[in-house]
Amino acid sequence: MPLIQIDLDRELFEAKRDEISDAIHQAQIETLEIPADDKFQIFRPYEPGEQRVQFNHDRPNQMIVHITMVRRYSVATKLALYQQILVNLGRLGIAPADVHIPVMENGFEDWYAGRID
Amino acid sequence: MPLIQIDLDRELFEAKRDEISDAIHQAQIETLEIPADDKFQIFRPYEPGEQRVQFNHDRPNQMIVHITMVRRYSVATKLALYQQILVNLGRLGIAPADVHIPVMENGFEDWYAGRID
Amino acid sequence: MPLIQIDLDRELFEAKRDEISDAIHQAQIETLEIPADDKFQIFRPYEPGEQRVQFNHDRPNQMIVHITMVRRYSVATKLALYQQILVNLGRLGIAPADVHIPVMENGFEDWYAGRID
Repeated sequence: MPLIQIDLDRELFEAKRDEISDAIHQAQIETLEIPADDKFQIFRPYEPGEQRVQFNHDRPNQMIVHITMVRRYSVATKLALYQQILVNLGRLGIAPADVHIPVMENGFEDWYAGRID
Repeated sequence: MPLIQIDLDRELFEAKRDEISDAIHQAQIETLEIPADDKFQIFRPYEPGEQRVQFNHDRPNQMIVHITMVRRYSVATKLALYQQILVNLGRLGIAPADVHIPVMENGFEDWYAGRID
Repeated sequence: MPLIQIDLDRELFEAKRDEISDAIHQAQIETLEIPADDKFQIFRPYEPGEQRVQFNHDRPNQMIVHITMVRRYSVATKLALYQQILVNLGRLGIAPADVHIPVMENGFEDWYAGRID
């Protein structure tokens, strides 16, 4: 079960939290083929001044979609995931230039996920 | 020195922060054999609506215990750590079904820990 | 583009946010040779009681500089980065004993950074 941690401007969070949640989740279902009820997200709304972006002065409110998941997906699958997240967020008016996605991978043994299997 | 980052419902944090801190720390001492004074934890209390859980609708307030540590422990040791965390949190009334533990590993060279050794 | 996530006491954040942002960024420029406009930082100010430190009772307000970057730098380069961060923060009155730096690495394929290259 991938864990999604989303840093985003508090104003955007307040306005579109449900839509953003579903947009990212749908992208995972479509490209990683996870079960549809496998949503596990934390939003971390940031206040003005808590994020510093210098590479893109005129677009300071970057959304960061941190994905933590087991090392099992091909590069092609990862790229498809990023692309689908961008498409789905784009439908909400969030531009690809305002999104960052870092992925961190670990092993199956690196999770306790609510039950010992 | 493992770094522990704990996402949890703000209400639970306010009610049991000391006990939760000790429960997780004791599990590390018992299973990783870290020094007793080696506690390094950050709590990130979340507000209602900042966490989205779909796999377990009736238990929305998951606690996530992120562990970042050097790659040096066996799978058996990791499983023992998870188990002991669950036992210790269980004594506080926190059910195993409400806990998630992702582990991220790095190397010895990937830390500056308050001093250059 | 390294992603920097900084946990720090809210009071310190309020007092020196700009200086801390620049201190860490300059260290990256000097030791990783990143482009000067490549700053991407998130501050996570914590409230009293949200961080628990037991190894250093009398210095409870540790700053954690989380660095997420591609696996491409030598150990020597990483050590130089830590050292320069400490020197630059030291100029702001922040002691090396109050700083922690964990590094997490991933691959080039583990990033979407605002554009598909």
